[in-house]
Amino acid sequence: MAARERIIEAALATLQEEGYAQASARAIARTGGFNQGLIYYHFDDLDDLFLEALDLTSRRRLERYREAVEGCRTASELVAALKVLYAEDLAAGHVAAVQQLVAGAARSPILGPGIVERVGPWIDYCEEVARRFLAGGPFESLVDPRDLGFAVVAYYMGIETLGHLAPERSRADDLFETAARFASLFDSMGS
Amino acid sequence: MAARERIIEAALATLQEEGYAQASARAIARTGGFNQGLIYYHFDDLDDLFLEALDLTSRRRLERYREAVEGCRTASELVAALKVLYAEDLAAGHVAAVQQLVAGAARSPILGPGIVERVGPWIDYCEEVARRFLAGGPFESLVDPRDLGFAVVAYYMGIETLGHLAPERSRADDLFETAARFASLFDSMGS
Repeated sequence: MAARERIIEAALATLQEEGYAQASARAIARTGGFNQGLIYYHFDDLDDLFLEALDLTSRRRLERYREAVEGCRTASELVAALKVLYAEDLAAGHVAAVQQLVAGAARSPILGPGIVERVGPWIDYCEEVARRFLAGGPFESLVDPRDLGFAVVAYYMGIETLGHLAPERSRADDLFETAARFASLFDSMGS
Repeated sequence: MAARERIIEAALATLQEEGYAQASARAIARTGGFNQGLIYYHFDDLDDLFLEALDLTSRRRLERYREAVEGCRTASELVAALKVLYAEDLAAGHVAAVQQLVAGAARSPILGPGIVERVGPWIDYCEEVARRFLAGGPFESLVDPRDLGFAVVAYYMGIETLGHLAPERSRADDLFETAARFASLFDSMGS
């Protein structure tokens, strides 16, 4: 792996395991087993590096979402796939990385706009999926797929904020069950 | 106004206008026009004080929500009322205060659990409203009002997170329009 990629991987892992406040150049260098001077040779500052780390995890997860959702034909299949993908988001540390950077945005002028820029492709993707599932169905004229895409991403981020503030209260499983009941209704309306 | 209340009001105003990172005891004392020693006479530390400030704005807003939603008889009326209430949340600085404290939670061990505790009454309230509007309708057996209450609050917080990161991208108006179309459908199904 090239030095640049090694640094990005180490930054992502440090962010996930130690949190934004602890992810110093020293901590990242220790995680990756390289000299801390290497970081500043390749990146202007740590927030630049963290945004590249966000790019990395975001690209990986988006690819997985595309792959898993592509074959879904009904809303029920979609909800079942999303439940698995969400569990993966947690297990892969993707959620932790996003939460840490959102929290860090309070201390950095470039993180906030940088995160939102990277949320953009997710809104686009959710819009694309919404468009596919709404097409020809009873809600097509009621819902703008773009609004729905934004709403889904906002909802996801809200769950993360609440979950981050009080991890023990996560109700994601209950919510997927409710979504599954709706999906089944939606599927029956479309047929 | 008693000293304690004056300090809480000053802390809330400072949080809203200057942000968590800038809301020092000195800044709060300047806002309120009192001696900064008074703060530590009444509060253990600033985060205690900020949580009381959150209590204050939260109680005020919840009271307004109760008042405005009470008279709503249809989902369309509810969405129209919520749109106005949300504009008030913004204008009153309630959204700003919540955003600042959520951001501050990254730096404080007591803020996170404290915020979630104060989100609880909102989930309860949303559950109560959901229960009332679902009762006797076509979705009563499909949706757990508690889940819906949680989902609504999570969604609200997500919108705030995205809005805070990139204020210019707020899509709240579009989303209320979509909600209004759904409410009108919902109302027609129930009749």
